[in-house]
Amino acid sequence: MSGRLVGVGTGPGDPDLLTVKAVRAIESADVVAAFAKRGRVSNARTTIAHLLRPDQVEEALDYPVTTEIDRHHPDYQSQTSAFYDEGAARLARHLDSGRTVAVLSEGDPLFYGSYMHLHVRLAPRYPTEVIPGITAMSGCWSMAGLPLVQGDDVLSVLPGTLEEAELATRLAGTDGAVIMKVGRNLPKIRSALARAGKLADAVYVERGTMASGRSLRLSDKPDDEAPYFALILVPGWSTRP
Amino acid sequence: MSGRLVGVGTGPGDPDLLTVKAVRAIESADVVAAFAKRGRVSNARTTIAHLLRPDQVEEALDYPVTTEIDRHHPDYQSQTSAFYDEGAARLARHLDSGRTVAVLSEGDPLFYGSYMHLHVRLAPRYPTEVIPGITAMSGCWSMAGLPLVQGDDVLSVLPGTLEEAELATRLAGTDGAVIMKVGRNLPKIRSALARAGKLADAVYVERGTMASGRSLRLSDKPDDEAPYFALILVPGWSTRP
Repeated sequence: MSGRLVGVGTGPGDPDLLTVKAVRAIESADVVAAFAKRGRVSNARTTIAHLLRPDQVEEALDYPVTTEIDRHHPDYQSQTSAFYDEGAARLARHLDSGRTVAVLSEGDPLFYGSYMHLHVRLAPRYPTEVIPGITAMSGCWSMAGLPLVQGDDVLSVLPGTLEEAELATRLAGTDGAVIMKVGRNLPKIRSALARAGKLADAVYVERGTMASGRSLRLSDKPDDEAPYFALILVPGWSTRP
Repeated sequence: MSGRLVGVGTGPGDPDLLTVKAVRAIESADVVAAFAKRGRVSNARTTIAHLLRPDQVEEALDYPVTTEIDRHHPDYQSQTSAFYDEGAARLARHLDSGRTVAVLSEGDPLFYGSYMHLHVRLAPRYPTEVIPGITAMSGCWSMAGLPLVQGDDVLSVLPGTLEEAELATRLAGTDGAVIMKVGRNLPKIRSALARAGKLADAVYVERGTMASGRSLRLSDKPDDEAPYFALILVPGWSTRP
Protein backbone atom coordinates (compact mmCIF):
# COMPACT_ATOMS: atom_id res chain seq x y z
CA MET A 1 0.00 0.00 0.00
CA SER A 2 1.43 3.35 -0.97
CA GLY A 3 1.88 6.26 1.39
CA ARG A 4 0.34 9.70 1.19
CA LEU A 5 1.76 13.01 0.01
CA VAL A 6 0.70 16.14 1.91
CA GLY A 7 1.66 19.63 0.73
CA VAL A 8 1.55 21.73 3.91
CA GLY A 9 1.33 25.51 3.85
CA THR A 10 3.31 26.87 6.80
CA GLY A 11 2.21 30.49 6.39
CA PRO A 12 4.33 33.62 6.53
CA GLY A 13 6.61 32.68 9.44
CA ASP A 14 4.73 33.09 12.74
CA PRO A 15 4.18 29.54 14.14
CA ASP A 16 0.79 30.69 15.49
CA LEU A 17 -0.31 31.31 11.90
CA LEU A 18 -0.12 27.58 11.13
CA THR A 19 -3.57 26.09 10.70
CA VAL A 20 -4.82 23.40 13.06
CA LYS A 21 -4.77 21.04 10.06
CA ALA A 22 -1.15 21.86 9.23
CA VAL A 23 -0.07 21.22 12.82
CA ARG A 24 -1.75 17.79 12.80
CA ALA A 25 -0.34 16.88 9.39
CA ILE A 26 3.21 17.72 10.46
CA GLU A 27 2.88 15.93 13.80
CA SER A 28 1.55 12.77 12.17
CA ALA A 29 3.89 12.63 9.16
CA ASP A 30 6.55 9.92 8.91
CA VAL A 31 8.74 12.11 6.71
CA VAL A 32 9.02 15.91 6.70
CA ALA A 33 10.60 17.46 3.61
CA ALA A 34 11.59 21.10 3.10
CA PHE A 35 13.24 23.16 0.36
CA ALA A 36 16.24 25.27 1.34
CA LYS A 37 19.22 27.06 -0.08
CA ARG A 38 22.30 24.89 0.35
CA GLY A 39 23.83 25.45 3.79
CA ARG A 40 20.75 27.23 5.14
CA VAL A 41 17.77 26.04 7.14
CA SER A 42 14.47 26.61 5.37
CA ASN A 43 12.17 29.26 6.82
CA ALA A 44 9.30 26.80 6.70
CA ARG A 45 11.25 24.29 8.81
CA THR A 46 12.09 27.01 11.35
CA THR A 47 8.38 27.85 11.59
CA ILE A 48 7.45 24.25 12.46
CA ALA A 49 10.59 23.17 14.39
CA HIS A 50 8.66 22.96 17.68
CA LEU A 51 6.42 20.25 16.21
CA LEU A 52 9.13 17.82 15.03
CA ARG A 53 9.72 14.51 16.80
CA PRO A 54 13.11 12.76 16.97
CA ASP A 55 11.75 9.69 15.17
CA GLN A 56 10.60 11.62 12.10
CA VAL A 57 12.75 11.36 8.98
CA GLU A 58 13.74 14.72 7.51
CA GLU A 59 14.48 15.32 3.84
CA ALA A 60 16.26 18.55 2.96
CA LEU A 61 15.68 19.51 -0.66
CA ASP A 62 18.63 21.82 -1.35
CA TYR A 63 18.19 24.04 -4.39
CA PRO A 64 21.02 23.75 -6.90
CA VAL A 65 23.26 26.83 -7.12
CA THR A 66 22.01 28.51 -10.29
CA THR A 67 22.67 32.17 -9.53
CA GLU A 68 25.41 32.31 -12.18
CA ILE A 69 23.06 31.15 -14.91
CA ASP A 70 20.38 33.27 -16.60
CA ARG A 71 17.02 31.81 -15.73
CA HIS A 72 15.93 31.69 -19.36
CA HIS A 73 19.07 29.79 -20.38
CA PRO A 74 18.48 26.10 -21.24
CA ASP A 75 21.10 25.08 -18.64
CA TYR A 76 19.02 26.74 -15.91
CA GLN A 77 15.87 24.96 -17.06
CA SER A 78 17.54 21.57 -17.27
CA GLN A 79 19.34 21.93 -13.92
CA THR A 80 16.20 22.96 -12.04
CA SER A 81 14.14 20.32 -13.79
CA ALA A 82 16.68 17.62 -12.85
CA PHE A 83 16.63 18.91 -9.26
CA TYR A 84 12.85 18.55 -9.00
CA ASP A 85 12.95 15.13 -10.68
CA GLU A 86 15.54 13.94 -8.19
CA GLY A 87 13.59 15.38 -5.22
CA ALA A 88 10.40 13.72 -6.43
CA ALA A 89 12.25 10.40 -6.78
CA ARG A 90 13.57 10.66 -3.21
CA LEU A 91 10.07 11.27 -1.85
CA ALA A 92 8.60 8.55 -4.08
CA ARG A 93 10.82 5.97 -2.36
CA HIS A 94 9.22 6.92 0.99
CA LEU A 95 5.74 6.89 -0.54
CA ASP A 96 6.35 3.46 -2.07
CA SER A 97 7.25 2.23 1.43
CA GLY A 98 3.87 3.38 2.72
CA ARG A 99 5.11 6.47 4.56
CA THR A 100 3.20 9.72 4.88
CA VAL A 101 5.35 12.53 3.49
CA ALA A 102 4.67 16.15 4.47
CA VAL A 103 6.30 18.70 2.17
CA LEU A 104 6.59 22.09 3.87
CA SER A 105 5.81 25.16 1.83
CA GLU A 106 6.14 28.75 3.06
CA GLY A 107 2.90 30.63 2.57
CA ASP A 108 0.42 28.63 0.48
CA PRO A 109 1.69 25.55 -1.41
CA LEU A 110 -0.03 26.21 -4.76
CA PHE A 111 0.56 29.99 -4.75
CA TYR A 112 4.10 30.68 -6.06
CA GLY A 113 5.45 27.74 -4.02
CA SER A 114 8.24 25.28 -4.89
CA TYR A 115 5.98 22.47 -3.70
CA MET A 116 4.09 22.80 -7.01
CA HIS A 117 7.02 21.21 -8.85
CA LEU A 118 6.76 18.09 -6.69
CA HIS A 119 2.96 18.13 -6.84
CA VAL A 120 2.84 17.88 -10.64
CA ARG A 121 5.35 15.01 -10.51
CA LEU A 122 3.82 13.00 -7.64
CA ALA A 123 0.11 13.81 -7.30
CA PRO A 124 -0.83 11.77 -10.40
CA ARG A 125 0.77 8.67 -8.81
CA TYR A 126 0.02 8.89 -5.06
CA PRO A 127 -2.89 9.91 -2.80
CA THR A 128 -2.27 13.61 -2.25
CA GLU A 129 -3.71 16.35 -0.09
CA VAL A 130 -2.88 20.05 -0.14
CA ILE A 131 -3.35 22.08 3.04
CA PRO A 132 -3.63 25.79 2.24
CA GLY A 133 -1.56 28.29 4.20
CA ILE A 134 -1.71 31.99 5.04
CA THR A 135 0.03 33.80 2.18
CA ALA A 136 2.80 36.32 2.79
CA MET A 137 0.56 39.01 1.32
CA SER A 138 -2.25 38.28 3.81
CA GLY A 139 0.28 38.36 6.63
CA CYS A 140 1.59 41.72 5.42
CA TRP A 141 -1.71 43.56 4.96
CA SER A 142 -2.91 42.19 8.31
CA MET A 143 0.22 43.43 10.08
CA ALA A 144 -0.18 46.80 8.37
CA GLY A 145 -3.90 46.89 9.26
CA LEU A 146 -4.59 47.91 5.66
CA PRO A 147 -8.00 47.00 4.19
CA LEU A 148 -6.99 45.87 0.70
CA VAL A 149 -9.99 45.15 -1.51
CA GLN A 150 -13.76 45.34 -1.16
CA GLY A 151 -16.93 44.66 -3.14
CA ASP A 152 -16.27 44.51 -6.89
CA ASP A 153 -12.62 45.55 -6.69
CA VAL A 154 -10.11 43.98 -9.07
CA LEU A 155 -6.90 42.83 -7.37
CA SER A 156 -3.63 42.37 -9.30
CA VAL A 157 -0.67 40.46 -7.92
CA LEU A 158 2.37 41.69 -9.83
CA PRO A 159 6.06 40.73 -9.76
CA GLY A 160 8.35 43.72 -9.30
CA THR A 161 10.50 42.24 -12.06
CA LEU A 162 8.09 43.54 -14.75
CA GLU A 163 9.32 46.46 -16.87
CA GLU A 164 8.36 49.89 -15.61
CA ALA A 165 5.95 50.71 -18.44
CA GLU A 166 4.07 47.45 -18.05
CA LEU A 167 3.96 47.80 -14.28
CA ALA A 168 2.57 51.35 -14.63
CA THR A 169 -0.12 50.25 -17.09
CA ARG A 170 -1.21 47.36 -14.89
CA LEU A 171 -1.24 49.53 -11.76
CA ALA A 172 -3.35 52.16 -13.50
CA GLY A 173 -5.85 49.50 -14.57
CA THR A 174 -6.47 47.81 -11.24
CA ASP A 175 -8.15 48.70 -7.94
CA GLY A 176 -5.92 46.94 -5.40
CA ALA A 177 -2.43 45.64 -6.06
CA VAL A 178 0.25 43.56 -4.38
CA ILE A 179 3.77 43.95 -5.76
CA MET A 180 6.16 41.14 -4.90
CA LYS A 181 9.91 40.65 -5.42
CA VAL A 182 10.74 44.20 -4.40
CA GLY A 183 14.48 44.23 -3.49
CA ARG A 184 16.48 46.10 -6.13
CA ASN A 185 13.31 46.79 -8.12
CA LEU A 186 12.18 49.39 -5.56
CA PRO A 187 13.13 52.58 -7.50
CA LYS A 188 11.48 51.23 -10.66
CA ILE A 189 8.33 50.22 -8.75
CA ARG A 190 8.17 53.69 -7.18
CA SER A 191 8.35 55.32 -10.65
CA ALA A 192 5.65 53.01 -11.99
CA LEU A 193 3.36 53.83 -9.04
CA ALA A 194 3.91 57.56 -9.63
CA ARG A 195 3.08 57.19 -13.35
CA ALA A 196 -0.10 55.31 -12.37
CA GLY A 197 -1.06 58.03 -9.88
CA LYS A 198 -0.94 55.58 -6.97
CA LEU A 199 2.27 56.43 -5.15
CA ALA A 200 0.58 58.32 -2.31
CA ASP A 201 -1.55 55.29 -1.33
CA ALA A 202 1.20 52.66 -1.50
CA VAL A 203 2.39 50.91 1.67
CA TYR A 204 5.76 49.19 2.03
CA VAL A 205 5.97 46.09 4.28
CA GLU A 206 9.04 44.06 5.17
CA ARG A 207 9.29 40.91 7.28
CA GLY A 208 5.50 40.91 7.69
CA THR A 209 4.39 38.80 10.70
CA MET A 210 7.97 38.56 12.04
CA ALA A 211 8.73 40.26 15.35
CA SER A 212 11.13 42.51 13.43
CA GLY A 213 8.54 43.33 10.76
CA ARG A 214 7.47 46.86 9.92
CA SER A 215 5.19 48.71 7.55
CA LEU A 216 5.30 52.33 6.44
CA ARG A 217 4.03 54.55 3.66
CA LEU A 218 6.20 53.96 0.62
CA SER A 219 6.70 57.73 0.42
CA ASP A 220 8.48 57.54 3.80
CA LYS A 221 10.78 54.69 2.71
CA PRO A 222 14.00 55.76 0.92
CA ASP A 223 15.32 53.86 -2.11
CA ASP A 224 18.19 52.51 -0.02
CA GLU A 225 17.78 48.81 0.62
CA ALA A 226 14.79 46.53 0.55
CA PRO A 227 14.65 42.77 1.10
CA TYR A 228 13.70 40.72 -1.94
CA PHE A 229 10.67 39.45 -0.04
CA ALA A 230 9.39 42.89 0.97
CA LEU A 231 5.95 43.68 -0.47
CA ILE A 232 4.26 46.84 -1.68
CA LEU A 233 0.52 47.05 -1.14
CA VAL A 234 -1.87 49.37 -2.95
CA PRO A 235 -5.35 49.45 -1.40
CA GLY A 236 -8.43 49.49 -3.59
CA TRP A 237 -11.82 50.24 -2.02
CA SER A 238 -12.21 53.69 -3.54
CA THR A 239 -15.83 53.79 -2.34
CA ARG A 240 -14.70 53.55 1.28
CA PRO A 241 -17.22 55.46 3.40
CA MET B 1 -8.52 51.19 30.29
CA SER B 2 -10.00 50.38 26.90
CA GLY B 3 -10.41 46.90 25.50
CA ARG B 4 -8.93 45.42 22.39
CA LEU B 5 -10.42 44.82 18.94
CA VAL B 6 -9.37 41.66 17.10
CA GLY B 7 -10.40 40.96 13.51
CA VAL B 8 -10.26 37.18 13.22
CA GLY B 9 -10.09 35.40 9.87
CA THR B 10 -12.01 32.13 10.17
CA GLY B 11 -10.97 30.75 6.79
CA PRO B 12 -13.14 29.07 4.18
CA GLY B 13 -15.32 26.95 6.47
CA ASP B 14 -13.37 23.89 7.67
CA PRO B 15 -12.72 24.40 11.43
CA ASP B 16 -9.32 22.71 10.97
CA LEU B 17 -8.32 25.58 8.68
CA LEU B 18 -8.49 28.05 11.56
CA THR B 19 -5.03 29.21 12.56
CA VAL B 20 -3.67 28.48 16.03
CA LYS B 21 -3.75 32.24 16.63
CA ALA B 22 -7.41 32.51 15.61
CA VAL B 23 -8.39 29.66 17.95
CA ARG B 24 -6.65 31.37 20.88
CA ALA B 25 -8.14 34.77 20.05
CA ILE B 26 -11.67 33.38 19.93
CA GLU B 27 -11.23 31.33 23.12
CA SER B 28 -9.88 34.32 25.05
CA ALA B 29 -12.31 36.97 23.77
CA ASP B 30 -14.92 38.47 26.09
CA VAL B 31 -17.21 39.30 23.17
CA VAL B 32 -17.56 37.45 19.85
CA ALA B 33 -19.24 39.37 17.04
CA ALA B 34 -20.30 38.03 13.63
CA PHE B 35 -22.05 39.40 10.56
CA ALA B 36 -25.06 37.48 9.27
CA LYS B 37 -28.08 37.80 7.08
CA ARG B 38 -31.11 38.42 9.27
CA GLY B 39 -32.56 35.11 10.47
CA ARG B 40 -29.48 33.11 9.48
CA VAL B 41 -26.44 32.00 11.45
CA SER B 42 -23.20 33.32 10.01
CA ASN B 43 -20.90 30.80 8.33
CA ALA B 44 -18.00 32.16 10.34
CA ARG B 45 -19.85 31.50 13.60
CA THR B 46 -20.68 27.95 12.50
CA THR B 47 -16.98 27.37 11.78
CA ILE B 48 -15.96 28.38 15.32
CA ALA B 49 -19.03 27.17 17.27
CA HIS B 50 -16.99 24.42 19.01
CA LEU B 51 -14.76 27.07 20.61
CA LEU B 52 -17.46 29.23 22.21
CA ARG B 53 -17.96 29.29 25.98
CA PRO B 54 -21.31 29.93 27.68
CA ASP B 55 -19.96 33.02 29.45
CA GLN B 56 -18.92 34.80 26.26
CA VAL B 57 -21.15 37.62 25.02
CA GLU B 58 -22.24 37.26 21.41
CA GLU B 59 -23.08 40.17 19.13
CA ALA B 60 -24.94 39.33 15.92
CA LEU B 61 -24.47 42.05 13.31
CA ASP B 62 -27.47 41.47 11.03
CA TYR B 63 -27.14 43.05 7.60
CA PRO B 64 -30.03 45.34 6.71
CA VAL B 65 -32.31 44.00 3.97
CA THR B 66 -31.19 45.97 0.91
CA THR B 67 -31.92 43.50 -1.88
CA GLU B 68 -34.74 45.70 -3.21
CA ILE B 69 -32.43 48.70 -3.61
CA ASP B 70 -29.83 49.20 -6.33
CA ARG B 71 -26.40 49.22 -4.72
CA HIS B 72 -25.41 52.46 -6.41
CA HIS B 73 -28.55 54.23 -5.15
CA PRO B 74 -27.93 56.78 -2.37
CA ASP B 75 -30.45 54.95 -0.12
CA TYR B 76 -28.32 51.78 -0.31
CA GLN B 77 -25.16 53.70 0.59
CA SER B 78 -26.80 55.51 3.50
CA GLN B 79 -28.49 52.37 4.88
CA THR B 80 -25.32 50.29 4.79
CA SER B 81 -23.27 53.14 6.18
CA ALA B 82 -25.74 53.58 9.06
CA PHE B 83 -25.62 49.82 9.69
CA TYR B 84 -21.83 49.83 10.03
CA ASP B 85 -21.93 52.98 12.19
CA GLU B 86 -24.43 51.32 14.52
CA GLY B 87 -22.43 48.06 14.66
CA ALA B 88 -19.23 49.97 15.43
CA ALA B 89 -21.05 51.88 18.20
CA ARG B 90 -22.28 48.60 19.74
CA LEU B 91 -18.75 47.18 19.79
CA ALA B 92 -17.31 50.47 21.04
CA ARG B 93 -19.43 50.18 24.19
CA HIS B 94 -17.76 46.81 24.94
CA LEU B 95 -14.32 48.23 24.12
CA ASP B 96 -14.93 51.23 26.40
CA SER B 97 -15.71 48.74 29.21
CA GLY B 98 -12.29 47.11 28.73
CA ARG B 99 -13.55 43.98 26.95
CA THR B 100 -11.67 42.14 24.22
CA VAL B 101 -13.92 41.97 21.16
CA ALA B 102 -13.26 39.35 18.43
CA VAL B 103 -14.99 40.10 15.13
CA LEU B 104 -15.28 36.97 13.01
CA SER B 105 -14.61 37.27 9.32
CA GLU B 106 -14.97 34.44 6.79
CA GLY B 107 -11.77 34.00 4.82
CA ASP B 108 -9.32 36.84 5.49
CA PRO B 109 -10.60 39.97 7.30
CA LEU B 110 -8.98 42.61 5.06
CA PHE B 111 -9.63 40.76 1.77
CA TYR B 112 -13.21 41.51 0.64
CA GLY B 113 -14.45 41.12 4.23
CA SER B 114 -17.23 43.04 6.02
CA TYR B 115 -14.89 43.41 8.99
CA MET B 116 -13.10 46.16 7.03
CA HIS B 117 -16.04 48.51 7.61
CA LEU B 118 -15.68 48.13 11.38
CA HIS B 119 -11.88 48.30 11.16
CA VAL B 120 -11.86 51.75 9.55
CA ARG B 121 -14.32 53.00 12.17
CA LEU B 122 -12.69 51.49 15.28
CA ALA B 123 -8.97 50.86 14.65
CA PRO B 124 -8.09 54.59 14.91
CA ARG B 125 -9.60 54.66 18.43
CA TYR B 126 -8.76 51.28 20.03
CA PRO B 127 -5.80 48.88 20.15
CA THR B 128 -6.47 46.57 17.21
CA GLU B 129 -5.02 43.38 15.83
CA VAL B 130 -5.92 41.61 12.59
CA ILE B 131 -5.38 37.84 12.36
CA PRO B 132 -5.18 36.75 8.72
CA GLY B 133 -7.24 33.78 7.55
CA ILE B 134 -7.12 31.26 4.72
CA THR B 135 -8.97 32.86 1.79
CA ALA B 136 -11.76 31.05 -0.03
CA MET B 137 -9.61 31.07 -3.16
CA SER B 138 -6.72 29.28 -1.39
CA GLY B 139 -9.18 26.74 -0.03
CA CYS B 140 -10.55 26.15 -3.52
CA TRP B 141 -7.30 25.70 -5.44
CA SER B 142 -5.99 23.46 -2.65
CA MET B 143 -9.08 21.27 -2.79
CA ALA B 144 -8.81 21.13 -6.58
CA GLY B 145 -5.05 20.36 -6.33
CA LEU B 146 -4.47 23.02 -8.98
CA PRO B 147 -1.10 24.82 -8.99
CA LEU B 148 -2.18 28.38 -9.67
CA VAL B 149 0.75 30.73 -10.20
CA GLN B 150 4.52 30.39 -10.27
CA GLY B 151 7.65 32.50 -10.73
CA ASP B 152 6.91 35.84 -12.41
CA ASP B 153 3.25 35.10 -13.13
CA VAL B 154 0.70 37.90 -12.85
CA LEU B 155 -2.46 36.92 -10.93
CA SER B 156 -5.76 38.77 -11.37
CA VAL B 157 -8.66 38.46 -8.96
CA LEU B 158 -11.78 39.48 -10.88
CA PRO B 159 -15.44 39.83 -9.90
CA GLY B 160 -17.77 37.93 -12.23
CA THR B 161 -19.96 41.04 -12.22
CA LEU B 162 -17.65 42.79 -14.73
CA GLU B 163 -18.97 43.20 -18.28
CA GLU B 164 -18.03 40.44 -20.70
CA ALA B 165 -15.70 42.56 -22.85
CA GLU B 166 -13.78 43.84 -19.87
CA LEU B 167 -13.56 40.37 -18.34
CA ALA B 168 -12.24 38.98 -21.65
CA THR B 169 -9.59 41.71 -21.95
CA ARG B 170 -8.41 41.21 -18.38
CA LEU B 171 -8.32 37.41 -18.75
CA ALA B 172 -6.31 37.69 -21.97
CA GLY B 173 -3.79 39.96 -20.23
CA THR B 174 -3.06 37.86 -17.14
CA ASP B 175 -1.31 34.58 -16.37
CA GLY B 176 -3.44 33.19 -13.55
CA ALA B 177 -6.93 34.33 -12.62
CA VAL B 178 -9.54 33.84 -9.93
CA ILE B 179 -13.10 34.80 -10.84
CA MET B 180 -15.42 35.39 -7.90
CA LYS B 181 -19.17 36.01 -7.63
CA VAL B 182 -20.02 33.38 -10.22
CA GLY B 183 -23.74 32.52 -9.70
CA ARG B 184 -25.84 33.89 -12.56
CA ASN B 185 -22.74 35.34 -14.22
CA LEU B 186 -21.58 31.85 -15.28
CA PRO B 187 -22.61 31.97 -18.99
CA LYS B 188 -21.02 35.43 -19.38
CA ILE B 189 -17.82 34.29 -17.66
CA ARG B 190 -17.67 31.24 -19.93
CA SER B 191 -17.96 33.48 -23.02
CA ALA B 192 -15.27 35.81 -21.73
CA LEU B 193 -12.92 32.87 -21.07
CA ALA B 194 -13.54 31.56 -24.59
CA ARG B 195 -12.79 35.01 -26.11
CA ALA B 196 -9.56 35.12 -24.08
CA GLY B 197 -8.59 31.63 -25.27
CA LYS B 198 -8.59 30.27 -21.72
CA LEU B 199 -11.76 28.22 -21.49
CA ALA B 200 -10.01 24.85 -21.80
CA ASP B 201 -7.83 25.50 -18.73
CA ALA B 202 -10.55 26.88 -16.44
CA VAL B 203 -11.62 24.94 -13.35
CA TYR B 204 -14.95 25.42 -11.58
CA VAL B 205 -15.06 24.95 -7.78
CA GLU B 206 -18.07 25.11 -5.51
CA ARG B 207 -18.22 24.80 -1.71
CA GLY B 208 -14.41 24.52 -1.60
CA THR B 209 -13.19 22.94 1.67
CA MET B 210 -16.71 21.80 2.62
CA ALA B 211 -17.43 18.07 2.77
CA SER B 212 -19.91 18.62 -0.06
CA GLY B 213 -17.40 20.59 -2.15
CA ARG B 214 -16.42 19.63 -5.69
CA SER B 215 -14.23 20.83 -8.50
CA LEU B 216 -14.43 20.05 -12.20
CA ARG B 217 -13.26 21.41 -15.52
CA LEU B 218 -15.50 24.32 -16.43
CA SER B 219 -16.06 22.66 -19.81
CA ASP B 220 -17.75 19.77 -17.94
CA LYS B 221 -20.02 22.07 -15.93
CA PRO B 222 -23.30 23.06 -17.63
CA ASP B 223 -24.69 26.60 -17.41
CA ASP B 224 -27.48 25.38 -15.15
CA GLU B 225 -27.00 26.62 -11.62
CA ALA B 226 -23.98 27.86 -9.75
CA PRO B 227 -23.77 29.22 -6.21
CA TYR B 228 -22.87 32.90 -5.90
CA PHE B 229 -19.76 31.89 -3.94
CA ALA B 230 -18.52 29.35 -6.50
CA LEU B 231 -15.13 30.27 -7.98
CA ILE B 232 -13.53 29.82 -11.36
CA LEU B 233 -9.77 29.30 -11.38
CA VAL B 234 -7.47 29.79 -14.37
CA PRO B 235 -3.95 28.45 -13.76
CA GLY B 236 -0.93 30.39 -14.94
CA TRP B 237 2.49 28.72 -14.92
CA SER B 238 2.80 28.38 -18.70
CA THR B 239 6.46 27.34 -18.31
CA ARG B 240 5.43 24.29 -16.30
CA PRO B 241 7.98 21.54 -16.97
